[in-house]
Amino acid sequence: MARPLHLTAFMRPVSLHTGAWRYPGAYPDANFNFGHIKSFIQKLEAAKFDAFFMADHLAVLNMPVEALKRSHTVTSFEPFTLLSALAAVTEKIGLAATASTTFDEPYHVARRFASLDHISNGRAAWNIVTTSNPDSARNFGLDEHVEHGERYKRAREFYDVVTGLWDSFADDAFIRDQQSGIFFDPEKMHVLDHKGEELSVRGPLNIARPVQGWPVIVQAGQSEPGRQLAAETAELVFCSPRDLSAAKALYGDIKGRMVAASRNPDHLKILPAAFIVVGDTIEEAKAKRAKLDSLVHYDSAIASLSIALGYDASGFDPDGPLPDIPETNASKSGRAQVLKLAEQEKLTVRQLAQRYGGYSGLAFVGTPQTIADEMQTWLSEEASDGFTVVFPYLPQGLDDVTQRLIPELQRRSIFRTDYEGSTLRDHLGLPRPANRFFA
Amino acid sequence: MARPLHLTAFMRPVSLHTGAWRYPGAYPDANFNFGHIKSFIQKLEAAKFDAFFMADHLAVLNMPVEALKRSHTVTSFEPFTLLSALAAVTEKIGLAATASTTFDEPYHVARRFASLDHISNGRAAWNIVTTSNPDSARNFGLDEHVEHGERYKRAREFYDVVTGLWDSFADDAFIRDQQSGIFFDPEKMHVLDHKGEELSVRGPLNIARPVQGWPVIVQAGQSEPGRQLAAETAELVFCSPRDLSAAKALYGDIKGRMVAASRNPDHLKILPAAFIVVGDTIEEAKAKRAKLDSLVHYDSAIASLSIALGYDASGFDPDGPLPDIPETNASKSGRAQVLKLAEQEKLTVRQLAQRYGGYSGLAFVGTPQTIADEMQTWLSEEASDGFTVVFPYLPQGLDDVTQRLIPELQRRSIFRTDYEGSTLRDHLGLPRPANRFFA
Repeated sequence: MARPLHLTAFMRPVSLHTGAWRYPGAYPDANFNFGHIKSFIQKLEAAKFDAFFMADHLAVLNMPVEALKRSHTVTSFEPFTLLSALAAVTEKIGLAATASTTFDEPYHVARRFASLDHISNGRAAWNIVTTSNPDSARNFGLDEHVEHGERYKRAREFYDVVTGLWDSFADDAFIRDQQSGIFFDPEKMHVLDHKGEELSVRGPLNIARPVQGWPVIVQAGQSEPGRQLAAETAELVFCSPRDLSAAKALYGDIKGRMVAASRNPDHLKILPAAFIVVGDTIEEAKAKRAKLDSLVHYDSAIASLSIALGYDASGFDPDGPLPDIPETNASKSGRAQVLKLAEQEKLTVRQLAQRYGGYSGLAFVGTPQTIADEMQTWLSEEASDGFTVVFPYLPQGLDDVTQRLIPELQRRSIFRTDYEGSTLRDHLGLPRPANRFFA
Repeated sequence: MARPLHLTAFMRPVSLHTGAWRYPGAYPDANFNFGHIKSFIQKLEAAKFDAFFMADHLAVLNMPVEALKRSHTVTSFEPFTLLSALAAVTEKIGLAATASTTFDEPYHVARRFASLDHISNGRAAWNIVTTSNPDSARNFGLDEHVEHGERYKRAREFYDVVTGLWDSFADDAFIRDQQSGIFFDPEKMHVLDHKGEELSVRGPLNIARPVQGWPVIVQAGQSEPGRQLAAETAELVFCSPRDLSAAKALYGDIKGRMVAASRNPDHLKILPAAFIVVGDTIEEAKAKRAKLDSLVHYDSAIASLSIALGYDASGFDPDGPLPDIPETNASKSGRAQVLKLAEQEKLTVRQLAQRYGGYSGLAFVGTPQTIADEMQTWLSEEASDGFTVVFPYLPQGLDDVTQRLIPELQRRSIFRTDYEGSTLRDHLGLPRPANRFFA
């Protein structure tokens, strides 16, 4: 096999596109229906995806009511509860859950991920987030959000404590000798006794070492401290570069930091988010996307365009072209992106607004062949190790990927036709971490 | 049907008896093997148990190494993770998880139980504990344990916040109208904005109201504030009275407090823990128990007897009768219990120690007929509404209950032959709580 592609599925929400639940044939409650989500993960497992990825918010996002009442994400399962249930109805696909280092306790986090890893027989991954959303702080007793640097300082120590707790027992600690009555060897239990600047945790964890040693460590940060934390600790990075050149820069930066931190750069896979719309022809794929964008309500869409432009666009003619806009202090690169898009795709103000109100990140819109070509380019140019797939709508947009794109990737021998191992580390080609306390 | 019996299964650990994992035919890893636990819950569901009950500890208990190394509970699944997975492989049986009000956040707890209730289609129950074990405090950044009164004050407010968060959305808030694009009605969302002495939580919860309105509220406290909290808030009480007369006193006290608090006493079911050993004859059942007790190591057993006596028993002849012991300041009632047991069952020091080191609480040891007789007496004497069954060893001790005792209870028409409803509230005959913010 050529350098293999890795694919995870971004599944909370099941589609990031705000119009997805209104698409013809879509299940309007898909984000909050266990039966549907179970069918999605079973399809993704049949297609041999590496993992199923759950983002998270610890709040109903505090947005204007016009946008909020149209949000299909306002009711969602808590990721950990959902993934534990899904573990019982799948066998191979990885299960990545988000847990916050700012609003949770390391003992709880270590214990839940260890449990998920055991229940799933080695398929758990922990997406470490520091939770930047200030609405979350107010659900956890704080009026002000925790400052960025402080959050990352706690995150780093939190990671040390959680991984230390996972190492509480040697892999062979549990003897369970019915004759002698010895259940485990106390010499193979380590009491962490961590006392740091941010955290004080005694240990040991009350669960055996995870099947994978440690669940796979995932991170999404693109900020300076986020990149450094990823280079030091992450094994999977979820990111959102806008295009190939931005992705190459990020990829090179993080892998370079890994080398500087004496880590093997192969031991971290970088998977940018990619919104994928598959058609029989490029035109058909574009038409599907245009149809989907048209389902974003203009009132909420125009606010997103105004943010992207740094200029109030609500007075523009919705059905005309983007007018000239006076210079402001807003981000020039953000505005340049909008102008480029308007020019390239010849979009009206309404269409532009609906793009920004729907999903405006990296997108592959085309036939199985053109999308596979693009993916191969990203791999060969060292812009990524694969992708975190964002579905436009479900079930059809997901079926288009699993039934049409995946076979094309398999035909080109860049994606597996079956799982070779049983753990998520096996799928991703990651080593099992040594126990820091026991040889 | 006569006044119906309710039965839950105490399943963390799968047996509370410390010798259970050594019993001939027992799975030594049963407490930590998802496949075994899945088979247990499916058998309990086939036997129409009301619920599967998971206690919890937030630490490896800090006991002498001689006892610790023989403990089959040192590695266990986190209850919430496990119950979520079990929800996916069962259809009717209730799922009761323990969560601490002292070492967790109300937003997390409300969200997880709401998720479990939705995933299980209305089968979740929250066992509210204040976590009295000081080893737990050290895993959550505290050197000293939180004082008893302070814990209960926080617990009461925590309950108000969690139930308030569950009421964030009216039951009919979610419209999901694909045509108009309105996902939910913002008029039917309530922002809690709680600011109390112990907690400050804004809300709303980011999940729809639970299927049951609120998951069933469970409590285990027998202390003065524990009884009062139960009378005000609980719908299921797990308790450990030593005998019928203690149970009647507790039952009368809690139900009386409910009346004083203007609650209907039928809206709380009291289910004492009962250790059940079934035999073809009473003698066979007693022999099974004696065999099980004999598997408790003497070194750890004698410590338990010393605690029960309030006197160091390690110098006694293990194979002689209990000698006379000088008066001490220790609990006279505890010592009287030991003396009564030694006299009644004519136990040696070793056998007494193994009883206290194994399981010394309320036990029904006999044939299906004698055990059913005892259970009927407890019901008719208003000592309980049923039992929380503690299995002596598994799978055989569980199979003896589901295959032999349950049919006898069904024959007497005091236990269901099928589930009549689909939610845990249906099984227990509990009303669905009104939403405090929406009619």
